Amino acid sequence: MGRLLFTGGTVVTAEGSYRADVLVEDEKVVSVGVDLPAEGAEEVDARGRLVMPGFIDGHTHMDMPFGGTVTADDWASGTAAALAGGTTTIVDFALQDVEGTLGGAVEEWGRKAEGKALIDYGFHVAITNLTGEIKAEIPSLKDRGVSSVKIFMAYKGTPLYTADEDLFEAMQIAREAGILVMVHAENGDVIAKLQQQALERGDFAPRFHALTRPEEVEAEATNRAIQLAEVAGCPLLVVHVSCAAALEEIHRAHELGQTVYAETCPQYLAFSYDDLCREGFEGAKYVCSPPLRDSWNREPLWRGLQIGDLQIFGSDHCSFNYRGQKELGRDDFTKIPNGLPGVEERAMVLWTLGVREGKIDERTFVAVLSTNQAKIHGMYPRKGTLAPGADADIVLWDPDLEITATVENRHGNVDYTPYQGMTFRGGPAAVYVRGRLAYRDGEILAEHGSGRYVERAFVPPSVGVLA
Amino acid sequence: MGRLLFTGGTVVTAEGSYRADVLVEDEKVVSVGVDLPAEGAEEVDARGRLVMPGFIDGHTHMDMPFGGTVTADDWASGTAAALAGGTTTIVDFALQDVEGTLGGAVEEWGRKAEGKALIDYGFHVAITNLTGEIKAEIPSLKDRGVSSVKIFMAYKGTPLYTADEDLFEAMQIAREAGILVMVHAENGDVIAKLQQQALERGDFAPRFHALTRPEEVEAEATNRAIQLAEVAGCPLLVVHVSCAAALEEIHRAHELGQTVYAETCPQYLAFSYDDLCREGFEGAKYVCSPPLRDSWNREPLWRGLQIGDLQIFGSDHCSFNYRGQKELGRDDFTKIPNGLPGVEERAMVLWTLGVREGKIDERTFVAVLSTNQAKIHGMYPRKGTLAPGADADIVLWDPDLEITATVENRHGNVDYTPYQGMTFRGGPAAVYVRGRLAYRDGEILAEHGSGRYVERAFVPPSVGVLA
Amino acid sequence: MGRLLFTGGTVVTAEGSYRADVLVEDEKVVSVGVDLPAEGAEEVDARGRLVMPGFIDGHTHMDMPFGGTVTADDWASGTAAALAGGTTTIVDFALQDVEGTLGGAVEEWGRKAEGKALIDYGFHVAITNLTGEIKAEIPSLKDRGVSSVKIFMAYKGTPLYTADEDLFEAMQIAREAGILVMVHAENGDVIAKLQQQALERGDFAPRFHALTRPEEVEAEATNRAIQLAEVAGCPLLVVHVSCAAALEEIHRAHELGQTVYAETCPQYLAFSYDDLCREGFEGAKYVCSPPLRDSWNREPLWRGLQIGDLQIFGSDHCSFNYRGQKELGRDDFTKIPNGLPGVEERAMVLWTLGVREGKIDERTFVAVLSTNQAKIHGMYPRKGTLAPGADADIVLWDPDLEITATVENRHGNVDYTPYQGMTFRGGPAAVYVRGRLAYRDGEILAEHGSGRYVERAFVPPSVGVLA
Amino acid sequence: MGRLLFTGGTVVTAEGSYRADVLVEDEKVVSVGVDLPAEGAEEVDARGRLVMPGFIDGHTHMDMPFGGTVTADDWASGTAAALAGGTTTIVDFALQDVEGTLGGAVEEWGRKAEGKALIDYGFHVAITNLTGEIKAEIPSLKDRGVSSVKIFMAYKGTPLYTADEDLFEAMQIAREAGILVMVHAENGDVIAKLQQQALERGDFAPRFHALTRPEEVEAEATNRAIQLAEVAGCPLLVVHVSCAAALEEIHRAHELGQTVYAETCPQYLAFSYDDLCREGFEGAKYVCSPPLRDSWNREPLWRGLQIGDLQIFGSDHCSFNYRGQKELGRDDFTKIPNGLPGVEERAMVLWTLGVREGKIDERTFVAVLSTNQAKIHGMYPRKGTLAPGADADIVLWDPDLEITATVENRHGNVDYTPYQGMTFRGGPAAVYVRGRLAYRDGEILAEHGSGRYVERAFVPPSVGVLA
Repeated sequence: MGRLLFTGGTVVTAEGSYRADVLVEDEKVVSVGVDLPAEGAEEVDARGRLVMPGFIDGHTHMDMPFGGTVTADDWASGTAAALAGGTTTIVDFALQDVEGTLGGAVEEWGRKAEGKALIDYGFHVAITNLTGEIKAEIPSLKDRGVSSVKIFMAYKGTPLYTADEDLFEAMQIAREAGILVMVHAENGDVIAKLQQQALERGDFAPRFHALTRPEEVEAEATNRAIQLAEVAGCPLLVVHVSCAAALEEIHRAHELGQTVYAETCPQYLAFSYDDLCREGFEGAKYVCSPPLRDSWNREPLWRGLQIGDLQIFGSDHCSFNYRGQKELGRDDFTKIPNGLPGVEERAMVLWTLGVREGKIDERTFVAVLSTNQAKIHGMYPRKGTLAPGADADIVLWDPDLEITATVENRHGNVDYTPYQGMTFRGGPAAVYVRGRLAYRDGEILAEHGSGRYVERAFVPPSVGVLA
Repeated sequence: MGRLLFTGGTVVTAEGSYRADVLVEDEKVVSVGVDLPAEGAEEVDARGRLVMPGFIDGHTHMDMPFGGTVTADDWASGTAAALAGGTTTIVDFALQDVEGTLGGAVEEWGRKAEGKALIDYGFHVAITNLTGEIKAEIPSLKDRGVSSVKIFMAYKGTPLYTADEDLFEAMQIAREAGILVMVHAENGDVIAKLQQQALERGDFAPRFHALTRPEEVEAEATNRAIQLAEVAGCPLLVVHVSCAAALEEIHRAHELGQTVYAETCPQYLAFSYDDLCREGFEGAKYVCSPPLRDSWNREPLWRGLQIGDLQIFGSDHCSFNYRGQKELGRDDFTKIPNGLPGVEERAMVLWTLGVREGKIDERTFVAVLSTNQAKIHGMYPRKGTLAPGADADIVLWDPDLEITATVENRHGNVDYTPYQGMTFRGGPAAVYVRGRLAYRDGEILAEHGSGRYVERAFVPPSVGVLA
Repeated sequence: MGRLLFTGGTVVTAEGSYRADVLVEDEKVVSVGVDLPAEGAEEVDARGRLVMPGFIDGHTHMDMPFGGTVTADDWASGTAAALAGGTTTIVDFALQDVEGTLGGAVEEWGRKAEGKALIDYGFHVAITNLTGEIKAEIPSLKDRGVSSVKIFMAYKGTPLYTADEDLFEAMQIAREAGILVMVHAENGDVIAKLQQQALERGDFAPRFHALTRPEEVEAEATNRAIQLAEVAGCPLLVVHVSCAAALEEIHRAHELGQTVYAETCPQYLAFSYDDLCREGFEGAKYVCSPPLRDSWNREPLWRGLQIGDLQIFGSDHCSFNYRGQKELGRDDFTKIPNGLPGVEERAMVLWTLGVREGKIDERTFVAVLSTNQAKIHGMYPRKGTLAPGADADIVLWDPDLEITATVENRHGNVDYTPYQGMTFRGGPAAVYVRGRLAYRDGEILAEHGSGRYVERAFVPPSVGVLA
Repeated sequence: MGRLLFTGGTVVTAEGSYRADVLVEDEKVVSVGVDLPAEGAEEVDARGRLVMPGFIDGHTHMDMPFGGTVTADDWASGTAAALAGGTTTIVDFALQDVEGTLGGAVEEWGRKAEGKALIDYGFHVAITNLTGEIKAEIPSLKDRGVSSVKIFMAYKGTPLYTADEDLFEAMQIAREAGILVMVHAENGDVIAKLQQQALERGDFAPRFHALTRPEEVEAEATNRAIQLAEVAGCPLLVVHVSCAAALEEIHRAHELGQTVYAETCPQYLAFSYDDLCREGFEGAKYVCSPPLRDSWNREPLWRGLQIGDLQIFGSDHCSFNYRGQKELGRDDFTKIPNGLPGVEERAMVLWTLGVREGKIDERTFVAVLSTNQAKIHGMYPRKGTLAPGADADIVLWDPDLEITATVENRHGNVDYTPYQGMTFRGGPAAVYVRGRLAYRDGEILAEHGSGRYVERAFVPPSVGVLA
């Protein structure tokens, strides 16, 4: 792989936009300049394109067992979908086996990805059984290039559920180890009780998924995680913030100067509770946790992206087929596998509903999709930037590209798309992974296994908002 | 002036920090890259230095008449001080003559700067007499490269004072014209009354300057300006925010999604009301408006810089000598000329008290001193960035430089310094203006008149925090 | 007039409800007890009735010149309407003549009331011209039994308008004198400008009355009055709070412990901006200031009554006929006299929309209509309570009384009613003024001139919410 | 017991203050009036006294086993102390035996009180083991005159601790049953972990009691209880609020219109963390939960009382001797029995620090000590008022009484007093229980066993603040 020169485009970074050429060599950005000389480099015409750092999705679930089934996308189809959406790096969740070690989870997930991944990747470890031995093991994750652990306050009755006692101690250990704690913040106790009562009443339909997970249980757990992190003295990342009430807790933490990062996801801006109420069993296609909310919550979420309360925008891609998977819950909403695909649509949703509608500007688009992701997930400035020295992960964004989503034109392996019929305006014309053309005009060009594992290191922030 | 190559330094931008070389040619940054080849360029060793875009100070008062006297610094001494602090562009306030036009003010200020300025500069116009003709003139300011007007809610009894009626109409006109409105937000009516009562009571000492301008009058006027701007539909810049109460009003506006920019200044972080109480007439050296506040206000101001409520950090440099100027108010605090020098100390204060103390990080330092200044003041990406194509205004920042302030080592023309004896840790080792070495190791190297007028154009923001 | 014994009723006070008899003698409540012996007193059967202290309306405008005309109700018809609504005392606004004194206003208003008033009354003085002499006169109001002055921040261009300078000084004087300052809080400057622009655009219809007085101008002025009062150190009463934004400012003041009282009015709970948009010129019937707001504001106002941010509920009764008066503004909304009748409907609106709908309870109903009115307006415990020793102003409230408002069944002198067709559920069955039956079953029984002037004295509060 | 006439005093109620006589007959107030005729009643000279409804303390722990010991005060000494402080009714906590029923707890506590209590009393039931059978039993508590249950979120590792699952279900049951849920809100998980770590570090001293229960764990649990109550749709009472952070959560709930009652206690206004740091083992005398806080929290607590966020002021009287009881924790702060005496000092602390210092007024004093207690604890208007028909529980308050606390002049059975040497200004001159003189001038006159059990019934509130 030789040298590439992207000419004539407008570079967009988390700082701002300007006209510049970008020279790539040996997988790296080597310089950004005005009218750079080609000097033998292959020229890529970027006129009319926005040249952005490759997007990073810090929240995917590929080839993951959940509720007796396995996600529809494995590392081949899942990373194909990611690529088609401009994403060049994902950080996926390696689930600790209840009987296993954290290191074992990293290794197993490494095997899942190996030979399949089309893009670069890292792993968070999701802790399911915090024994004394596992506590002792946490610091060693850094040696494996893992800079973050995830803990679930929801899913009571499954190994994922973690009581406050263990959550708090894990936070203390993580602080000492320099590891970032991520939480799924919903009160598992209340949900379990509400689910049981709903089933007893005969309320089986998909929409009861939302009605048994009201906003208060997310807001409550969000505040709890924040307070525990404050006492433990550790930074915190609250993933998939779905509603104004939970966001308010994060806003308060920022007002007090606490380091709390937060993520929202495309489904919370594109869909709402109404989709869960679609007729028949169609609502099952929109079952994810936290659930879709009443649509008035969207405006506060946009505000959160605008003023920096929400620093990252991840997909929480966790795909299940309608046939055979979502259908498991036909008679009992608690059996519907939780999760939506979104790794492909993430950036297009954000551009279409955000940038085009004047809700966010280009630089915020790049920040929440790439730069802030790299910083929070411990990969900056190797990833998340077009600065010289960075990996040459590059998206040529066509602001006028129109794509109407159908099952057929999706690149993942799911038998439906929740975005069916939605037209995106703005999308990736071409995507480069470490200088290699990996996607162009709808076509995947990367080879399986060309993605590489990225070692990550969390840099505890001084203070302040991110770019 | 040929080509310069800054090698071995760490580039710091509003996005982040990374190792890179910077190549400059014909006054512009032409490329930023890894190990750029010199190819005949003069090499500048930047090892151990942080390479930053030149700082911009959107708030200076050079050669300005005020209260029967004229500021101590003219465009020669004032821009020398600026340079010595790493500032390569200022935006100064051209005061409308009460009988004159806005264009006349721009022209007059142009004459003041011409042949003296060592750095680049632009002008805001401070409106003092908003007649029908002046209203009609506002839009034409854009043709002169002026993208902002300032209106004073304080100083009742002087031409500066503007009633709500005119402030509001000016906001409407500015919105239509695409011009940014800046306000000095203090309730002039209340201050005038409190001053009169203080003098009647025989309270003549400098500290009564603060006691007759309580925080409430700043918070009140800040909120008033914000509400008027909301009704008028225009963006707003609140300058020199001095206290938590005023900042709270700005924070609320951001929560509601309103475009309100805000500035704080070094004096509000470095000094406090206690300095106004210094024995004898020493307090006069610390008289500025809004006044210095109780020191507990500093922490909220830092928080404002951290979470983006305060996007810029300007000096409000408005210098008067102690002898003959501050002394005018020896028997009557209302006669003390309002203002402090600070254009030289601004960045050093922010680094010493902010970055070194872990209150803000490097990228926020660059954002509030340079990048956000350029954006708000309509000069980005020509100024405020090291992006290719930008003016080659560059600071080589030495994070370990120690300077203890004395009158003697100041570069301005003031017979005292409020920073007397304060040791700064971190300062500019060298400063380049459009590729020309203008300052190094305490010495001014630029020629008078080498500074150029910068035409500015305000780009109404979509939304969102700045970098 | 001898002795009366109210038997078998449920006494409702600002403390709570309980079964008790009430014995009245010589215009006073002499005892409240269980099964009190009649001992010659005339028995009044109160079974099925709620026995409440007579309502007090601290906000009426009877026989008041405004905008070239005079309110439709004089003291005869106006107090008849009050009585029919359970109101036994009003505090009306005596307007200073621009050339006149405050004392002169009190005297003139005394003459208006004399021989006509059916119920007791006091006066606020509305200051229109705050000269040095008038400032000196303020403290003497106490000798006339006047404990409050009102200042208008709105109505720029009329004598009512008061600039901050005078408002602030009046607050200082009032604090010293122990007099309560009331404000009409709207930014008169902005309104004047918006009105002028609307007329220039040809926007003449009644709804432009609201569109030229947006919520921000009320919120702004409310905050301004609060901040000025804080600096002046004086208690404040903000009258006719119409919207959530203004209420929020009051809420903030309470959070900080400031003594700020606030009133809302029936029109803001019963009507909305939609009524201003009624077809033809019907909207003129709903023109008052501050204007009617979008209906979502009602819920926050109810919340304000619930949690004590709004301590009193006054009518702002200021009636004009449709024919000949409201019609003055047929071609220019700024010429529509501002004001609605409401002195008769006030309590019925509050019971129907508040108590019956579960928004407030009985004791809050009594508190905001009577007890808190008496406290804030300096008449407690002579008025506003059924405590022994109080004036025997008593309402026998029938919680199930149904009245559908028509022009014909109104007791005032207005040729329309904004409540046309609205059915109230709950109303006064009988009303006693100082022990005398004054109203029963729709019929006015009191004699003109039987109402007496009440000398009031403001007791600066320690702290805390009212009953 | 015949008839009593209290003459010449000033009646103080939650509504306000006024001069009136009070006639008592057959244990009841029969009338309140001006110059009531004696007609054979025994006259009690109340001149110079404030005549108030007897105080109610909804938070005591008499004869309660805790941590292997039993509180120092039983129902004889404890109710003597209460009487000496003006308290005529307490509601004590009957603890469910881990193996026992709720009804069994009520019966056992009935036996403890019987023959000993000098004043009237009721019981809350504290749930320690929420089995299916106990859930089914909850509604039957109403038949026993018990209107409230208490649930502990703290004390992990003891039977008191209740997980969210059970707390939430108990709330649902209580809502259906019309029973009020009270919570001790501290995060037991975090405390247990912090305590274990402190002991491992060798931090044994009393002050570590506070350092292992930081404010965040109280604020967190407070918010959690509030959110769970919101989902369950039930009213909530948060007891012993100790700090600004927890109070803020309650304030937010009120802003949203949720029915959340809250109590603070004298120790949080009179003492602070500094007392826990007293030399030697003296800090043990100040160990209670939640712990004493930094003194800056007091001002927000006073604000809470002022603006109605805190509706009641209870003692949380839970006394242990220093010798033999507090000393159990000499080498391990976790073994110090938690609790302070305060039932005697409660009203005197509130008058001395509150009313005399201008922080609250007389009517709020009566509201939070008596009227609101009666309402929240289901006894109004039988208790908590001087309204006719109420029990003749009367305090003659001497606003100038001075008492300096010593162990000797306390009426309880504790070998120390945390108030040692503190001088109260204002106290009860005489106390009547159901018309019987029970206390006068330091002397207990009531007979053991004269107190009666009060059946309580919770009336779910409509809305609004209490008196």
